[in-house]
Amino acid sequence: MQQLHLDADRALPPDPTIRTLARTVYETTRSLPLVCMHGHVDAALLADDPPFGDPARLLITPDHYVTRLIHAAGVPLEALGVGPGAETDPRAIWRTFCSHWHLFRGTPSRFWLIHELVEVFGVKTVPSAETADQLYEELSERLAAPEFRPRALFDRFGIEVLATTDSPLDDLDAHARLAADGWGTRVIPTFRPDALVHLDRPGWTADVTTLGRRSGIDTSDYDGYLEALRSRRRAFVAAGGLATDHGHQTADTTPVSDATARRIYADALAGRCTAADAAAFAAHMLFQMAAMSCDDGLVMQLHPGVLRNHHDEALRRYGPDRGFDIPIAVEFTQALRPLLQAFGRHPALRLVLFTVDESVYSRELAPLAGVYPSVLLGAPWWFLDSPDGLRRFRSTVTETAGFYNTAGFVDDTRAFASIPARHDLARRIDAGYLAGLVAEHHLDLDEAIETAADLAYNIPKRVYSRS
Amino acid sequence: MQQLHLDADRALPPDPTIRTLARTVYETTRSLPLVCMHGHVDAALLADDPPFGDPARLLITPDHYVTRLIHAAGVPLEALGVGPGAETDPRAIWRTFCSHWHLFRGTPSRFWLIHELVEVFGVKTVPSAETADQLYEELSERLAAPEFRPRALFDRFGIEVLATTDSPLDDLDAHARLAADGWGTRVIPTFRPDALVHLDRPGWTADVTTLGRRSGIDTSDYDGYLEALRSRRRAFVAAGGLATDHGHQTADTTPVSDATARRIYADALAGRCTAADAAAFAAHMLFQMAAMSCDDGLVMQLHPGVLRNHHDEALRRYGPDRGFDIPIAVEFTQALRPLLQAFGRHPALRLVLFTVDESVYSRELAPLAGVYPSVLLGAPWWFLDSPDGLRRFRSTVTETAGFYNTAGFVDDTRAFASIPARHDLARRIDAGYLAGLVAEHHLDLDEAIETAADLAYNIPKRVYSRS
Amino acid sequence: MQQLHLDADRALPPDPTIRTLARTVYETTRSLPLVCMHGHVDAALLADDPPFGDPARLLITPDHYVTRLIHAAGVPLEALGVGPGAETDPRAIWRTFCSHWHLFRGTPSRFWLIHELVEVFGVKTVPSAETADQLYEELSERLAAPEFRPRALFDRFGIEVLATTDSPLDDLDAHARLAADGWGTRVIPTFRPDALVHLDRPGWTADVTTLGRRSGIDTSDYDGYLEALRSRRRAFVAAGGLATDHGHQTADTTPVSDATARRIYADALAGRCTAADAAAFAAHMLFQMAAMSCDDGLVMQLHPGVLRNHHDEALRRYGPDRGFDIPIAVEFTQALRPLLQAFGRHPALRLVLFTVDESVYSRELAPLAGVYPSVLLGAPWWFLDSPDGLRRFRSTVTETAGFYNTAGFVDDTRAFASIPARHDLARRIDAGYLAGLVAEHHLDLDEAIETAADLAYNIPKRVYSRS
Repeated sequence: MQQLHLDADRALPPDPTIRTLARTVYETTRSLPLVCMHGHVDAALLADDPPFGDPARLLITPDHYVTRLIHAAGVPLEALGVGPGAETDPRAIWRTFCSHWHLFRGTPSRFWLIHELVEVFGVKTVPSAETADQLYEELSERLAAPEFRPRALFDRFGIEVLATTDSPLDDLDAHARLAADGWGTRVIPTFRPDALVHLDRPGWTADVTTLGRRSGIDTSDYDGYLEALRSRRRAFVAAGGLATDHGHQTADTTPVSDATARRIYADALAGRCTAADAAAFAAHMLFQMAAMSCDDGLVMQLHPGVLRNHHDEALRRYGPDRGFDIPIAVEFTQALRPLLQAFGRHPALRLVLFTVDESVYSRELAPLAGVYPSVLLGAPWWFLDSPDGLRRFRSTVTETAGFYNTAGFVDDTRAFASIPARHDLARRIDAGYLAGLVAEHHLDLDEAIETAADLAYNIPKRVYSRS
Repeated sequence: MQQLHLDADRALPPDPTIRTLARTVYETTRSLPLVCMHGHVDAALLADDPPFGDPARLLITPDHYVTRLIHAAGVPLEALGVGPGAETDPRAIWRTFCSHWHLFRGTPSRFWLIHELVEVFGVKTVPSAETADQLYEELSERLAAPEFRPRALFDRFGIEVLATTDSPLDDLDAHARLAADGWGTRVIPTFRPDALVHLDRPGWTADVTTLGRRSGIDTSDYDGYLEALRSRRRAFVAAGGLATDHGHQTADTTPVSDATARRIYADALAGRCTAADAAAFAAHMLFQMAAMSCDDGLVMQLHPGVLRNHHDEALRRYGPDRGFDIPIAVEFTQALRPLLQAFGRHPALRLVLFTVDESVYSRELAPLAGVYPSVLLGAPWWFLDSPDGLRRFRSTVTETAGFYNTAGFVDDTRAFASIPARHDLARRIDAGYLAGLVAEHHLDLDEAIETAADLAYNIPKRVYSRS
Repeated sequence: MQQLHLDADRALPPDPTIRTLARTVYETTRSLPLVCMHGHVDAALLADDPPFGDPARLLITPDHYVTRLIHAAGVPLEALGVGPGAETDPRAIWRTFCSHWHLFRGTPSRFWLIHELVEVFGVKTVPSAETADQLYEELSERLAAPEFRPRALFDRFGIEVLATTDSPLDDLDAHARLAADGWGTRVIPTFRPDALVHLDRPGWTADVTTLGRRSGIDTSDYDGYLEALRSRRRAFVAAGGLATDHGHQTADTTPVSDATARRIYADALAGRCTAADAAAFAAHMLFQMAAMSCDDGLVMQLHPGVLRNHHDEALRRYGPDRGFDIPIAVEFTQALRPLLQAFGRHPALRLVLFTVDESVYSRELAPLAGVYPSVLLGAPWWFLDSPDGLRRFRSTVTETAGFYNTAGFVDDTRAFASIPARHDLARRIDAGYLAGLVAEHHLDLDEAIETAADLAYNIPKRVYSRS
């Protein structure tokens, strides 16, 4: 019976000349520490270091990359343990996954899953309806062992630093406990204020009240709200935070006057927020966040252009982050202009831009990053974190922006066990891309090797640092 | 003198490792039956089985893929037999085509034409001003023989099923005659109601009257109109139809209230239809068609994003479908939301999406298909049905949606003799793509082989079936 | 110590089969004369034939491709000799450039610069902080020699014809002096009326007054303005001009009535021009320019879709063309419709379309060029004039529009010494693309060779000729 196999040359270009060069380049980066500056792992996982539980709870149910594809084939999400009345037997969930293994052909999820099975857990059984139970046993045995606890894996993965994503309302208790254990610089928080800047979100009023309590600053008016956000940013900085993150539907950064901001804020607190006011305020707050970054040095990350929760009933039934977030066309050139006019050449600002709309790579993002000192291109995001997605990114941005206006790879995952697979894939694709440049005589091999290490390690360390 | 040559490895990747793998994969699909679920061949051609006539009338005059490129070089369409006062001598038309053969370098039309000449008709003369007459003779001789009649070719091509595209006003007489000959499941109709849902189209009023007569249902109000459409859909189902098809300028599916629909319909019958009302009604009808598909199980195909008849004078002079239909940017995420909110997870709906705007492949289409059970990605459409077009499709959608959320290849042609060439090209490109995945160790060879057969045969058979 | 090296196979595809074919194709075009139908070299440079000055003034300070990337790394533009109070020591500027050489990895600027250093100036020192002074000396020595004067290089480069870009207000004195020296057909003007058709531009009123003086026609009303433009076009034709050029923010070509045009023009002269009126007038003037091209045979070039001077303070400080021009999404299908309805099939019109928005290549540009006799696709523009940019152009337009609806390569540079490098790169990429078609059996080698020469020489000569 066939077994899973991680070929040493996987994801490297097949052309023999390029592959040989790519191997040489990849060998120099494969063991570099993992710098994970943007992700969604829960800090409590590393603060508490519990065992991971069963295979379905680790690899299937919480991973919308996996559940959405099986759902798209007509399988109810409930069969994967998602939603009210869902399947509760982890073995049954695992069997459903294994019997749909063919759906993952050609996807990065398959690359990551095989890496996790073989490299992280040391199992080689090909998932299928027939092998599901055996594989479940093998994985369960591994997960019970102490060397598969989160902190042990963190060490084994060679993670140097892992940034989590946190609400300004978070008390950062998990990070404090990590710091007490000497892990304070290894696991750091990221300031994500989205919930607080979208005034028409259900629960916003309660959240700004909590913000006031958490910061000890009265948030009953706009000025107090701004000051409370500044205060929470300082708390994140004190906890080791290096960056903020912003997920808006558009990239609009047009500020409004202070008077207008105060008026909109007061209206929202009084329950009178229009959609237009909410959108204007969200754009205004991106501008304000850039201003604050110029002051406190937090790197500003922007993730625009996704219509969240495309299907209302799915949101009600299954909650957010279940695969029903669908990208829309996004515009950066005009949307970012107010922010960049004001701060684009400010020496302290670093603005890292992400997109799931590839049409802006060569048209807008690379030209912006290729002239503004503050602008850096984030790694291919979400669906684009894939072999061809990573290749298209390099191919469409490098010629205009070079390598040194990019911000380095981010794994951007809540699936802790997939982190090394994701970095490994990015390093392989970059090695292949650089090897191609060498093979076409655009670059010398020693330059390719130096650039590979910069992309994998030096650039993210430099970009995500206190300026 | 050089001769046309169909190399066994044509359109397979040149890298020797990948080519060897691609050959192996292609060999397993090359002789599979052709499943042709969307096209524009006239059913009467197979019902009546007449000889094809002369080479110009078969290959040049009716094929806008061919005539538009020669026209773009400055040749009047009249010289190709198109329009009033056009050239009537097929030899002269043929000579004009042959002397412009170089214009087709790098185009899929050239691939198809060479395949037709060599493989279908067994002639190897390279088209040129010098060879035009000789080639004309050779082809004319073939076309006179009984084995080059439509039904004989249908058999020789290995077509298992061929879907035509038909108006709800069509009496399906040709299909009835085919059924009487035992061809009822081999040639099936497709329900295309565009003319009836665009209320501001010249002739619409007459057409809904005809719809009433054809269905025996009074279409003088909106409810009767809906019922008449339902009735015609049933007639298509009875005639073996498996799908509907919808060509709208946008993908908007926003429904209006019944009252509004009734009002707009009445206004249109009274000759008072505004452009805004017509657009709203067309969107509303896409929503209604999805509702009907949930009831009667017809697969729903959507082809949006083309500005038809860009040049008014060309339309007046030459009629539609002469190359003057030009794509525009299209949006799916928000446009389809109303339809998908209502029916996107309905077990009976299959919605196959086509585009000529490649920017939506990775941004919108693959994410939608990767989560909604009802959504399937149609094959690269029109201009994109080409070697690099097919490759970009696989490369940009597979990583997000996998292979099993696509609907299989459709040839989408009115050029009957080009059908096997088109399927052959798609199978070669898919073989090459899959071989590339094997060469990069993303897939095992046996999986690639299985997937190739699924793409070429099993998936379209499964998708286009009565649910 | 490593030296710069121009590999004979640079920028050719690495696959051995394709590379061998590509070499064969490239060899047939590498020595063809350079036809440079669109660029920004100053005619006075060739009329006066002065020595080039120092290396920094030749290669760094005026080249925004170079300065923007160094600025993006945080280096003030002043350090590169740009702006008030800038560094004036060319050696210091040169050192700053050399010590940031790594920023150009993967960019076409690096390809061009190495070509200039090695091939044009015969120096092989790799730029770095350590080698900067030595390299400066080597280049300075070359630049002092008579064989490095502009006209000598023009001859050595094998330039057959070089089009400059000129205001209608230009007296064409430099071109007259060139003509007097027998260079009148080697260096020709191009009519670029942008400044005169954007009524809200500061200085517009003064400019139309100058237009009146230059043409001897009263421009105090719209009819005189049109006539003055016609007159200047005739002067450009008399001076050997073959084309016009138009840089608009959108591609809108909607005409207004004569009455409206007269009203807007009068308002503008009276200082009462709204932004909407200015935009409408600019679109109207594109339509008028097409009408004039039908009369006088000047090829019409359109470069839309760039937001110029994204950063106001950078414009004030450094002037235009410093890297702060950022592309935006552009639409052609609807925007060009009025122009194409009126003139798209006119036998005298040739309309060459350029874009920095790649999403329109396959969606809009190739379908338009593939049917309208007047429409031709311009070479990849600006950021897209790069190895992968050129490849994506061929790959996305050829299958729909073929090769013969493109207009040939344009170098579009103000960096005179980079002209041969740019043509050489394009010829290499085209050779690689054509070789790929041969390797996949889409084209015979003799056809590939013929097509390569057409793309490099015959097509631009034919397109840019008096019709």
